[in-house]
Amino acid sequence: MRVVVSIGGSVLAPDLDPDRVAAHAEALERLAADGCELGVVVGGGGVAREYIEAGRALGANEVELDQLGIDTTRLNARLLIAALDGRGNLSPATDYDEAAAALRRGEVSVMGGLVPGQTTDAVAAGFAEAVDADLLVYATSADGVYDVDPNVHADAARFDEMTPAELVDVVLPMSRDAGASAPVDLLAAKLIDRARIRSVVLDGSDPTAVVDAVLSGEHTGTDVVP
Amino acid sequence: MRVVVSIGGSVLAPDLDPDRVAAHAEALERLAADGCELGVVVGGGGVAREYIEAGRALGANEVELDQLGIDTTRLNARLLIAALDGRGNLSPATDYDEAAAALRRGEVSVMGGLVPGQTTDAVAAGFAEAVDADLLVYATSADGVYDVDPNVHADAARFDEMTPAELVDVVLPMSRDAGASAPVDLLAAKLIDRARIRSVVLDGSDPTAVVDAVLSGEHTGTDVVP
Amino acid sequence: MRVVVSIGGSVLAPDLDPDRVAAHAEALERLAADGCELGVVVGGGGVAREYIEAGRALGANEVELDQLGIDTTRLNARLLIAALDGRGNLSPATDYDEAAAALRRGEVSVMGGLVPGQTTDAVAAGFAEAVDADLLVYATSADGVYDVDPNVHADAARFDEMTPAELVDVVLPMSRDAGASAPVDLLAAKLIDRARIRSVVLDGSDPTAVVDAVLSGEHTGTDVVP
Amino acid sequence: MRVVVSIGGSVLAPDLDPDRVAAHAEALERLAADGCELGVVVGGGGVAREYIEAGRALGANEVELDQLGIDTTRLNARLLIAALDGRGNLSPATDYDEAAAALRRGEVSVMGGLVPGQTTDAVAAGFAEAVDADLLVYATSADGVYDVDPNVHADAARFDEMTPAELVDVVLPMSRDAGASAPVDLLAAKLIDRARIRSVVLDGSDPTAVVDAVLSGEHTGTDVVP
Amino acid sequence: MRVVVSIGGSVLAPDLDPDRVAAHAEALERLAADGCELGVVVGGGGVAREYIEAGRALGANEVELDQLGIDTTRLNARLLIAALDGRGNLSPATDYDEAAAALRRGEVSVMGGLVPGQTTDAVAAGFAEAVDADLLVYATSADGVYDVDPNVHADAARFDEMTPAELVDVVLPMSRDAGASAPVDLLAAKLIDRARIRSVVLDGSDPTAVVDAVLSGEHTGTDVVP
Amino acid sequence: MRVVVSIGGSVLAPDLDPDRVAAHAEALERLAADGCELGVVVGGGGVAREYIEAGRALGANEVELDQLGIDTTRLNARLLIAALDGRGNLSPATDYDEAAAALRRGEVSVMGGLVPGQTTDAVAAGFAEAVDADLLVYATSADGVYDVDPNVHADAARFDEMTPAELVDVVLPMSRDAGASAPVDLLAAKLIDRARIRSVVLDGSDPTAVVDAVLSGEHTGTDVVP
Repeated sequence: MRVVVSIGGSVLAPDLDPDRVAAHAEALERLAADGCELGVVVGGGGVAREYIEAGRALGANEVELDQLGIDTTRLNARLLIAALDGRGNLSPATDYDEAAAALRRGEVSVMGGLVPGQTTDAVAAGFAEAVDADLLVYATSADGVYDVDPNVHADAARFDEMTPAELVDVVLPMSRDAGASAPVDLLAAKLIDRARIRSVVLDGSDPTAVVDAVLSGEHTGTDVVP
Repeated sequence: MRVVVSIGGSVLAPDLDPDRVAAHAEALERLAADGCELGVVVGGGGVAREYIEAGRALGANEVELDQLGIDTTRLNARLLIAALDGRGNLSPATDYDEAAAALRRGEVSVMGGLVPGQTTDAVAAGFAEAVDADLLVYATSADGVYDVDPNVHADAARFDEMTPAELVDVVLPMSRDAGASAPVDLLAAKLIDRARIRSVVLDGSDPTAVVDAVLSGEHTGTDVVP
Repeated sequence: MRVVVSIGGSVLAPDLDPDRVAAHAEALERLAADGCELGVVVGGGGVAREYIEAGRALGANEVELDQLGIDTTRLNARLLIAALDGRGNLSPATDYDEAAAALRRGEVSVMGGLVPGQTTDAVAAGFAEAVDADLLVYATSADGVYDVDPNVHADAARFDEMTPAELVDVVLPMSRDAGASAPVDLLAAKLIDRARIRSVVLDGSDPTAVVDAVLSGEHTGTDVVP
Repeated sequence: MRVVVSIGGSVLAPDLDPDRVAAHAEALERLAADGCELGVVVGGGGVAREYIEAGRALGANEVELDQLGIDTTRLNARLLIAALDGRGNLSPATDYDEAAAALRRGEVSVMGGLVPGQTTDAVAAGFAEAVDADLLVYATSADGVYDVDPNVHADAARFDEMTPAELVDVVLPMSRDAGASAPVDLLAAKLIDRARIRSVVLDGSDPTAVVDAVLSGEHTGTDVVP
Repeated sequence: MRVVVSIGGSVLAPDLDPDRVAAHAEALERLAADGCELGVVVGGGGVAREYIEAGRALGANEVELDQLGIDTTRLNARLLIAALDGRGNLSPATDYDEAAAALRRGEVSVMGGLVPGQTTDAVAAGFAEAVDADLLVYATSADGVYDVDPNVHADAARFDEMTPAELVDVVLPMSRDAGASAPVDLLAAKLIDRARIRSVVLDGSDPTAVVDAVLSGEHTGTDVVP
Repeated sequence: MRVVVSIGGSVLAPDLDPDRVAAHAEALERLAADGCELGVVVGGGGVAREYIEAGRALGANEVELDQLGIDTTRLNARLLIAALDGRGNLSPATDYDEAAAALRRGEVSVMGGLVPGQTTDAVAAGFAEAVDADLLVYATSADGVYDVDPNVHADAARFDEMTPAELVDVVLPMSRDAGASAPVDLLAAKLIDRARIRSVVLDGSDPTAVVDAVLSGEHTGTDVVP
């Protein structure tokens, strides 16, 4: 089973806690031990936010800010690789070919962001497309996809299951509003839709949730089923 | 005045007609002669479509299809560079740094697509962000931005002027429907919105329309004004 | 058995027909299934010719025209890779090291042109040299090597077998005359000669001809035997 | 006058304070306005330390830890570049050729670390060698070079002036002891010595100290005079 | 006037004599001082021959031997760059784009070999094509082009002037015989012919001969006039 | 057992003798046949010295001289790779990631120098760190580590065994004096110390000495034991 896991920055590195990174690495190793081919995309987290804030204060434009974020995701990817203790690629992949080549070599293939203008959510979807993944897991700080932003609407309802097209529909209006936070980025949703990738969106703060979701299909988040 | 021009594939290369490419090059040269610093992003056109169709028939996945498209945009970029007769960069830029460096050297800085999962519309917006462009011109096969898809709705109304946020609002629902064709890609619209880039969407089939829009502000398309 | 196959552009892609590409991929897969290590170099074909004509009309110089051709060979290489359905390298190799590395990994190693001033014929010979290939097959639009150009001389005689030095001798005068078309480029012949590479020149319009030539030595073309 | 300035991580980014970065950028801009050609090498600071600690806890080896440090220096370099507002190179240089090329283009040429096993002190000395700099300034957290570590020895005496060979002599024994902190790394001292580079070591916490040292030769640190 | 000069390895570096390299650099500087835009391609010479012999004894194949030769040409190119004292590019160009970019920056643009299977003669012709050079000078160990190999035939006659097509005709039969040494490689001749590049072949052992040939057209070698 | 072997230039290539290179390759092959994973770093030797002398006479600076040396180490690495007859990497690694990747693929991973300002001694230590080598062997022209330079002091005593910290202590004062020649470079010693790498320094003029030292621990040089 070929799986791409997106580990959001707020999940992997809200601050730099080696125990948290180790726990995520351990979850990935359990999946690998079970025979999964694994691609991983990691986000930026707290340090990325700090650099971006500093950059904005210094007059950096949006592309420069994105680049600060991307570089930080790669630092986080290096931490995860270190925690994988030789099972990962040597350095974070910088394009889909490198990422796919690591998979072919039997490595846990870790990468961060790719280019300005794209979130790591979208990179994860692109990675899944590129390697024809069987499953794409978003380990996020949200516990699934809601019909409306649950931080704003008390009566927001979570989807147990939805189609990629429905995911796009739900994410579209959230994407209109800078304040709202979609559990998955709109571009990611559209890539999931076009390539019809089976996906799961779940609360990744406990890394074992990813293991359960992949190995047994058990999770409390949202299944996106083409 | 620093301007990024996006020349859609259907505008530059519906088929490979050197006269059409030469006319676009001439328009760019007139802008350069008038003192504009020029970035140019070109699309794929007919050949891209042929390669993508062949790739799809052969079982290529979406990332592989995008890559076929990107490679073709670079071929088109080479044609435009040849037509610019030494005023362009030597080869199409492959990231924003290369593209910006060419601008710094005083060259007309031409590029094609960048990475899978992004259209050249979005690349053009990213290029404009990266170099703090004063103006971003979409030379498309549409003659502006309509409230609904004019190919579907006979009573569609064209905007003379709109804000970036309105552009996002208009493009969002079009982006939901694979059949509909937004004049500008949603990701591009969102980049325009976040970076507050003054933009124009116009019918680029006559290249002199771009010259007039840039030099005199005269055009029959849509102004996007932050 | 290590084999490099050169598939001429006029053979693989006179136009973009996925069925033709699929047939060539299938032939390669049969060879791989039979235990062959396979390198493949593909030519430009119809699209290359179109881009080169357009480039020439726009004043491109010879190096720029060659570059258009090379880029097109890489597009064709991507199509073939897609058709190989995961057995090929991820993207066309851009130098002999990359090409050889793919062979080492057990992939069908596909590449297009390399640098201006060299045909894909010569690249195929260089690839064969670089990996000490046991056999080099030119799948061309000609059905072998003739003593004089058969398109001009009705009494041209095809060689069943010849030495590399004889190949050079035959190709030399053809290379003097821009109108004549040697079945194999002079530089390629000279590389074959210096490295003493066993080669076959045959009509590749039916891809199974390559399979028969490699697996059983049966073919109606010309053997070049050092 | 061609000057390379090394801004230590503890000076530029003990924490991520945009005002501090802006002050350093302003000092550099004053030097550039005065006609200096400027190379700048920045260190890692607090974030580097955090990543290295996390990496160490996760079992990263020394090369991996260095790589975390290097990546962070490049993030800091991006912040400084943003603060330089278009006068710097577009992205941090990744080798001496790139760094020298930026100087040739008239840009303030900023870089971070280069390869594992080398500090940014040594990179600064290498940069100065590579471009035949007239002056190399170390803006450090120390206020000059002492005969013994002033943090350990109350009677440590600061040099006003010394030769490169003396610098090596002083730094050598400090380098023996992991606890001690030389104001300049031993490898850097040896590069300064072999290339006979005029250098200044000074307290860089106030960026204007660098300006004064370069423009008037006034400073309270140590002159290293070949 | 844009000139590409090919300095053969036997001319620049039969052995490693800095005075000889300095003399060639001085000749180039005189041309540059006179307003010439200069591209330079250097050969391998004695060290290349030594490495190639050692490689052959160790069983290296032809591509590996060529690579040894190419790497040595780049070492020679670095020497020439050092001798040009800041007027050259920072490091030898590794493709025609890099080489052309150095010319655009006003540098003397130096390069060595490019890829296996091509001599530096051919690279020089390709460079000349790529930058639309007005003149291509081969500073060789021969004193011009003869109708037959003058080392073999006592009555060989030197051409004062010939067309590119004649050059191809003369070089073709020499290229058939491994023992014979054409003053210019056949591939180079064919590139000169296709791009109609005005060329001079002369004895380069005295570097001032190149200066005279370029600035006054005076030389005792052979003019190739399209 | 994972071993990195540093073969000094004076040991591998005092002059270019294929037999000597072949003997070193044979020793490495015996180690590989015995199950060792092998990294190899080779020095510059006589040709490097010639290029550096010529460069110095032409006014090259220290970084340019180092670059000449590095390029020559890579030529030597190519010779060794040729002698390894397909067991080595295809081309010398240019950073630790490439070097480690070759090890992962089961190749003998050969590299030369890395960046200016570092000897190949230090590169070998960095390589050993990067891949967590069990043993690092310096095959040098010295027969071990002495308390003082044996070329100067008749009563110099060789260490049979020492700690990395002692190695640093011994090498430090030698490094102060340009005339003295430490058996291992100071930076290398410091890397060995920080990463606690078991090392051996021995006379490598007979390549079988390396085989014995690795396979049986028998040698007449110095053991560095953390």
